[in-house]
Amino acid sequence: LHSMSLSSGPPPPNSQSSNAVATEDSSSKETDALVHFLRGAPPTSGASQGQLDSLHQPSGAIHPASLPVTSLVSGVNRNQHQSKPGGGNYSAFSEASSTAVAGAPAASGGPLGASDEEMIDLTPGQDNPFRDPFGAQSAALSQHRRETATAMGNLGGGRRRSSSGGDDFVDLGGANPIDANEAAGLAEGHYNDFETIDWLKDIGRHRKRHREILRRMKLSCRGKLVSLFDSFSGWLCVGLIAVAAGLVAGVVDIGTTWMSDLRDGICAEAFWFNKEQCCWSSNDTTFDDEQACRQWYTWAELVGDSNKDFGAYIFKYLLYILWSLLFALLAALLVKVFAPYACGSGIPEMKTILSGFVIRGYLGKWTLLIKSVGIMLAVSAGLNLGKEGPMVHMAACCGNIIAYLFPKYGRNEAKKREVLSAAAAAGVSIAFGAPLGGVLFSLEEASYYFPLKTLWRSFFCSMVAASVLKLVNPFGNDHLVLFYVEYRSTWSVIEIGPFILLGVIGGLFGAGFIRANVWICRIRKFGRLGRFPIAEVMLVTLVTALLAFPNTYTRMNTSRLIKLLFSKCGPEDEAELCDYKWNSTNDYSGSAPAGPGIYSAMWKLMLAYLFKMVATVFTFGIKVPSGLFIPSLAVGAIAGRVLGNVLEQVAVSRMDSFPFRLFCRAGQPCINSGLYAMIGAAAALGGVTRMTLSLVAIMLELTGGLQYIVPLMIAAMTSKWVGDRLTKGGIYEEHIRLNGYPYLDNKEEFAHTTIAADVMHPRRGEAQLQLLYQDSMNVEDLETLMAASDVNGYPVVVSRDSHYLLGFVTRRDLMLALEFARKNEDGIVGDSLVYFTEHLVAGAVAARHTDAGASSTDGQPPALKLRRIVDLSPITVTDQTPMEVVLEMFRKLGLRQTLVTHNGRLLGLITKKDVLRHIEYLHSIDPHNLIFS
Amino acid sequence: LHSMSLSSGPPPPNSQSSNAVATEDSSSKETDALVHFLRGAPPTSGASQGQLDSLHQPSGAIHPASLPVTSLVSGVNRNQHQSKPGGGNYSAFSEASSTAVAGAPAASGGPLGASDEEMIDLTPGQDNPFRDPFGAQSAALSQHRRETATAMGNLGGGRRRSSSGGDDFVDLGGANPIDANEAAGLAEGHYNDFETIDWLKDIGRHRKRHREILRRMKLSCRGKLVSLFDSFSGWLCVGLIAVAAGLVAGVVDIGTTWMSDLRDGICAEAFWFNKEQCCWSSNDTTFDDEQACRQWYTWAELVGDSNKDFGAYIFKYLLYILWSLLFALLAALLVKVFAPYACGSGIPEMKTILSGFVIRGYLGKWTLLIKSVGIMLAVSAGLNLGKEGPMVHMAACCGNIIAYLFPKYGRNEAKKREVLSAAAAAGVSIAFGAPLGGVLFSLEEASYYFPLKTLWRSFFCSMVAASVLKLVNPFGNDHLVLFYVEYRSTWSVIEIGPFILLGVIGGLFGAGFIRANVWICRIRKFGRLGRFPIAEVMLVTLVTALLAFPNTYTRMNTSRLIKLLFSKCGPEDEAELCDYKWNSTNDYSGSAPAGPGIYSAMWKLMLAYLFKMVATVFTFGIKVPSGLFIPSLAVGAIAGRVLGNVLEQVAVSRMDSFPFRLFCRAGQPCINSGLYAMIGAAAALGGVTRMTLSLVAIMLELTGGLQYIVPLMIAAMTSKWVGDRLTKGGIYEEHIRLNGYPYLDNKEEFAHTTIAADVMHPRRGEAQLQLLYQDSMNVEDLETLMAASDVNGYPVVVSRDSHYLLGFVTRRDLMLALEFARKNEDGIVGDSLVYFTEHLVAGAVAARHTDAGASSTDGQPPALKLRRIVDLSPITVTDQTPMEVVLEMFRKLGLRQTLVTHNGRLLGLITKKDVLRHIEYLHSIDPHNLIFS
Repeated sequence: LHSMSLSSGPPPPNSQSSNAVATEDSSSKETDALVHFLRGAPPTSGASQGQLDSLHQPSGAIHPASLPVTSLVSGVNRNQHQSKPGGGNYSAFSEASSTAVAGAPAASGGPLGASDEEMIDLTPGQDNPFRDPFGAQSAALSQHRRETATAMGNLGGGRRRSSSGGDDFVDLGGANPIDANEAAGLAEGHYNDFETIDWLKDIGRHRKRHREILRRMKLSCRGKLVSLFDSFSGWLCVGLIAVAAGLVAGVVDIGTTWMSDLRDGICAEAFWFNKEQCCWSSNDTTFDDEQACRQWYTWAELVGDSNKDFGAYIFKYLLYILWSLLFALLAALLVKVFAPYACGSGIPEMKTILSGFVIRGYLGKWTLLIKSVGIMLAVSAGLNLGKEGPMVHMAACCGNIIAYLFPKYGRNEAKKREVLSAAAAAGVSIAFGAPLGGVLFSLEEASYYFPLKTLWRSFFCSMVAASVLKLVNPFGNDHLVLFYVEYRSTWSVIEIGPFILLGVIGGLFGAGFIRANVWICRIRKFGRLGRFPIAEVMLVTLVTALLAFPNTYTRMNTSRLIKLLFSKCGPEDEAELCDYKWNSTNDYSGSAPAGPGIYSAMWKLMLAYLFKMVATVFTFGIKVPSGLFIPSLAVGAIAGRVLGNVLEQVAVSRMDSFPFRLFCRAGQPCINSGLYAMIGAAAALGGVTRMTLSLVAIMLELTGGLQYIVPLMIAAMTSKWVGDRLTKGGIYEEHIRLNGYPYLDNKEEFAHTTIAADVMHPRRGEAQLQLLYQDSMNVEDLETLMAASDVNGYPVVVSRDSHYLLGFVTRRDLMLALEFARKNEDGIVGDSLVYFTEHLVAGAVAARHTDAGASSTDGQPPALKLRRIVDLSPITVTDQTPMEVVLEMFRKLGLRQTLVTHNGRLLGLITKKDVLRHIEYLHSIDPHNLIFS
Repeated sequence: LHSMSLSSGPPPPNSQSSNAVATEDSSSKETDALVHFLRGAPPTSGASQGQLDSLHQPSGAIHPASLPVTSLVSGVNRNQHQSKPGGGNYSAFSEASSTAVAGAPAASGGPLGASDEEMIDLTPGQDNPFRDPFGAQSAALSQHRRETATAMGNLGGGRRRSSSGGDDFVDLGGANPIDANEAAGLAEGHYNDFETIDWLKDIGRHRKRHREILRRMKLSCRGKLVSLFDSFSGWLCVGLIAVAAGLVAGVVDIGTTWMSDLRDGICAEAFWFNKEQCCWSSNDTTFDDEQACRQWYTWAELVGDSNKDFGAYIFKYLLYILWSLLFALLAALLVKVFAPYACGSGIPEMKTILSGFVIRGYLGKWTLLIKSVGIMLAVSAGLNLGKEGPMVHMAACCGNIIAYLFPKYGRNEAKKREVLSAAAAAGVSIAFGAPLGGVLFSLEEASYYFPLKTLWRSFFCSMVAASVLKLVNPFGNDHLVLFYVEYRSTWSVIEIGPFILLGVIGGLFGAGFIRANVWICRIRKFGRLGRFPIAEVMLVTLVTALLAFPNTYTRMNTSRLIKLLFSKCGPEDEAELCDYKWNSTNDYSGSAPAGPGIYSAMWKLMLAYLFKMVATVFTFGIKVPSGLFIPSLAVGAIAGRVLGNVLEQVAVSRMDSFPFRLFCRAGQPCINSGLYAMIGAAAALGGVTRMTLSLVAIMLELTGGLQYIVPLMIAAMTSKWVGDRLTKGGIYEEHIRLNGYPYLDNKEEFAHTTIAADVMHPRRGEAQLQLLYQDSMNVEDLETLMAASDVNGYPVVVSRDSHYLLGFVTRRDLMLALEFARKNEDGIVGDSLVYFTEHLVAGAVAARHTDAGASSTDGQPPALKLRRIVDLSPITVTDQTPMEVVLEMFRKLGLRQTLVTHNGRLLGLITKKDVLRHIEYLHSIDPHNLIFS
């Protein structure tokens, strides 16, 4: 024991030596005696002594305090953690939030020391219900955690009780006969807000329920019906979600068009028609943007000022700005007052939720409603944002709400996430009309656990949602496809060069965008800016409107701009972008010398590029619903179109010189600038989101350009490569990091040599774990233990002297079981012995070290058997397990915690947050770990 | 202990009671003493006594023999296994193949008792190298395991040493400085043939290697270069694979066309031209199937018999049959003589290999070469098979061969599988010109572990392969797309009905096909049929050629048939299928009353349907390379086209009645029978393979029909649903089951209540595990232990009296370490103490129970420390862990085995094969577990 090193420098790499272990291994009898001797007073009495002085230090630094024996058992690399610098994101989680860590009594820490899992329940429905709901959203997991959580609790629990979405159903226990025994006191697996779920246990509960249903099926006719319903409920559930999501998307699509057109004018015939419908109904078959139709009156026309002089221009300009401000104000107010969770794109939070975290109300019905209305307003306000990202969130809200109709999903968080993954797929499916892309988006970007069964469900959900949207037909044409490209020309292998260049441009844009946006969001979050969310929205809207109006390409709807940029020019086109000097001698039809229109369009587009880039940086993160897909596509499309046009002109001028004569064939355009716009758009979106497969699928389905799959792949891959060299993850990962969500990234590789013993609790200087002994504690001991701590579970070991692991008991189960026993079982008093084994062994009772004294077995109150609440199959790792393996287990099995043992003896435990903190810490000491991978 | 039930009936559901456990739990001291008392003689001396009488019984039944104490420790549900009926597939694996099971000495069992992992090395390069190489492939894992393995070993090790592919590289240790210490005696992780790999350990080795490279990088300039190369080697490797696969595909495509046309005739100008090239070169721009071009001479023309009478028909018929027989004979002989692994589609074996199994030579260069040539011959022989499935195998061969150029992948089986996943994606990419579909195929069907990094690599590989194939341009047109559909008409929501019907037809066809094919393959495998593989190939070819020639639709190339069926008729088409009574009054252009040509075509197509269905059943599984994609697509396309034409005629006749007037619009075909063919093809392929997402992606990329994504999805989903009700898995899973490959299906749900204690070894009646004690064995003990057993690893526990788990040592490491110590370390003799702890504790030495007698510590030879070979982080589960959790861990973590503990004490272990056997057993007792899911 004396050989243990106390040096505080970083350990040498690959040092897996554990000096103190050998003595421990020798023989169990010896060691048990040793441990007993060193340990001194029994932990039940020592619990209040073992206060952890470093527990509430936000920096996470741990003072070298008194050394309990437990941490000596394997003294490996432990000191590494002592030098942990403050400021990591995860320091926001109080140290006490780890399960079963350290004996710091809640009394000493007060409510501030309470674990974040329990905090939300503290003060429901108190004063000041509207205090800073924006802060409640953005800083939900940061320092002022408890206050904001209270504020949110109020939002859900105060006047708008129902605003927490469908989540209230969670507490309706016992309604279903299947769950009756759970409600009777064994309600394992229901989570509080901001809690990490345990997938393995939830799936276990699901299987148990399923078997119960199968058993009942054999008993009665009703059982058969229930079983049949339950079997189909998965498909039915995702089907209903798809229908709901499709309808919501239809409404939002129609509403957005109508509101956008409302800025321009109104339909005299029927004000609820948008411009296109109005012109159709008045039989103007040649509907065009420039050429107004009879029934449609612009506001200028309505006030009688229909001439095209400078005054009219100013009037239109003013009106444009006013409408923008009005829509933006409405959107911001709605979000602020009714559903703070409705702002932003929602995808970072979706990722976090799908990775196994509970955020109550984030997918509720108020969020859905406000987000639907808000996104229509925000898009109509002309802000640089898209409605596609929020649609994923909205579809997930539908998924969450409908899941509550099915007990299989509504009452099981792990199963619910399967449904939410499918809903996310439907979200992209309806946003882009891309059912395949939706599934791939869910697979690659949104979901965490994506077994094949979820894949098929997502597939089905995506398919039904696309069919429903086709029925609703919001765009008035038969295509689901948004930006259908008509050109069927092929591409030449030599063009791979420009495509790679576009990929590089997209990657650079993406990385720059992410950096700038995160920087601004950090200011917004921690600086003064965040205090005036509505003013910020108004300011951004005002500047956007002021700058956007003069330039045709920024004034128009972003979707229309993308469509324009993707399109191919023909001799009949009259648009500025198609101002070519066509003549009959143009061999390479489609490629002709540029006219003055093109040159002016190029300048305008370059200005639009700069404007959109900067404006999107500022827009993404303000307190209105906002998506990133469309703005990114637009920026990329501009870059691509400009590059395409430049190359085209070079090709036209040097048609017969080296590179071009190889692939420019007669009758075909030599360079198709529309294709370049498409590739550029994909590259920019790839740079921002770092999607690959799903990006290509979405682009294919958006454009129908199947023959361009390889160019799209090249652009996506290149932009991802370039972007990954410059920032650590896509915009969503960066926002997750910024907000400090407990998200265990499954894309990252772990390249360190730390082992489980370095990460587990208790560490050196911390009090030892609070344990239950299998047959030597009484009811009072347990109640004292629970009162003195706030962890949410306790490992059960053989005895005080012998820490061999038996199982794990959650706090909730223990509390309910004890309460139930006190109330309903005869003779259970404080002195009743509690045993977690199958049978009570007489010898064990005699060996009890309780204050009740050495009374004999006879004359004692009846013992309480609590074996049923023990989880007899906790996941364990040894203390020498490399952290990469532990990480794999956390990621792939969806663990909430794992117990650490050494030669069968319990040493400590590792929670998901310990792992996250450890990774964060390793990143902070080793910034060069992002190698080429 | 007396309360343990010995009843042999099935246990009641949810019985997780463990009566014997309570006494065990009471206190470690007591139990240790008890165990010691009951256990009697020390296991080292008892090892040779503990022969397991049931060990070599192929049925897997276990006789109730003497009851060792270990199996009493938790007597739960154990008897369930005793009634296991014989005949399960996995009984083919000898019981001894489990790691560390039972003390049956190899001497008593002889070579037959040796574990299958070791068998391949027994007799390399012996007599009769050509004995039954076909049997070697198909029965590789069945009863006559050792003989066939020897035969295969000969194929690899005899005259054609190099025919085992690039696998020889595996044994070239020490060439790379990084692996020097591995080669010095710690060569963990190299596997023998037919062995399951351990992913976690392999990934651990990879990380260790990576860290070593990073360390060297800081030391020298060369280290920097090595590091840079290593960082990029992943992308470089998949890039090279893609290029190789693309070139191979190009060659095969060109070769197939040329050979197919060779049956028809020859190009006079240049015999190496195929018909299309020949006609192009002679400037016959209007190349058509019917109308011959000048330079192309059919054989009939060459012999001067160019008139079209009956004699010429017979001549052509005979020639057709002869060519078919010649090609088929060549293919079969090549496969039989040079590479038995080249037959079949290879996808079931690919799936098995990717799930973590080693089959040496399956992806070698001889397999690649013979498969490439064989598939050209087999397709040209007019057999009902496609070259697309084998292309996946061929791409994987390229992947395997190229992986050996990169030590990162070639020397690490787990990492190599990442590359093979990417290669599988490239395989589909080149087979169908479907890069996206390839990635999805690899994800959904082929791969087992598919992290996002592998996704990106696959994406890249797929993309490069498609680009290379585009450069090679084997089809002579610019499209990568095989069956490009030109129709751009939309579909109506009401057509979902027929699409679902097509899905049902496809599902039924798929299920029927699978059942029939598996039935025939079983006869072929176990009956007399399998003894005459070449005769069988010739017979199938003869019958196919005889029946195929008279029907135009079966005579033509299957790809051309599919293309024809997918195409839309226009008024200008003169084909039989397009014989409509066009007139100018047809309102619904594209829909017209059928002429006589259509009726005759329908009859021919229905005959073709029956013929192709039956012929494919017989063809898939004969000893030539053969794929299933194209025949399935053809069968489905015929069904779809027929249904489409019927509906079309109904629509034409009742144009104005109820359902049709709703969606039949003027100027558009009301029912597009080409679309129906496409949907039907997708449904049939879906029914056979049960793919969903990848199927839709492949179909989209095959046809370019992006607007039909929802119909394709509907058909794929329906056919999967219908098929899954009728057979357990797709054709590949069924073939895996048929061949008894150790494949742990990750699509299946486990709905049973068994726990780890029910599955682990040793069971009741089996000898206890062979264990190593951490510091109480000497070198001789270990050598005796290893000589007396053939398991491939031993758990290390604290001592004979205290089975607390310390770690795990593989047989290979132990053997190498002991050999090394005997040779190179001074004073190591048989009596030298071996300890696995960090330090040797004096007390432990005194406590030794060896035959050397109670000598004091002084005067003994020096002790040997072997801690470095102990895996200190074995994955463990408790005996009460539900099997569903154990299964999850096996699937997701890629385990080879897990140790089972109870309160920290080692009880037994579970290998992957134990799990497979258990699942097989559960299926056999509960056929109704396939509920709606």
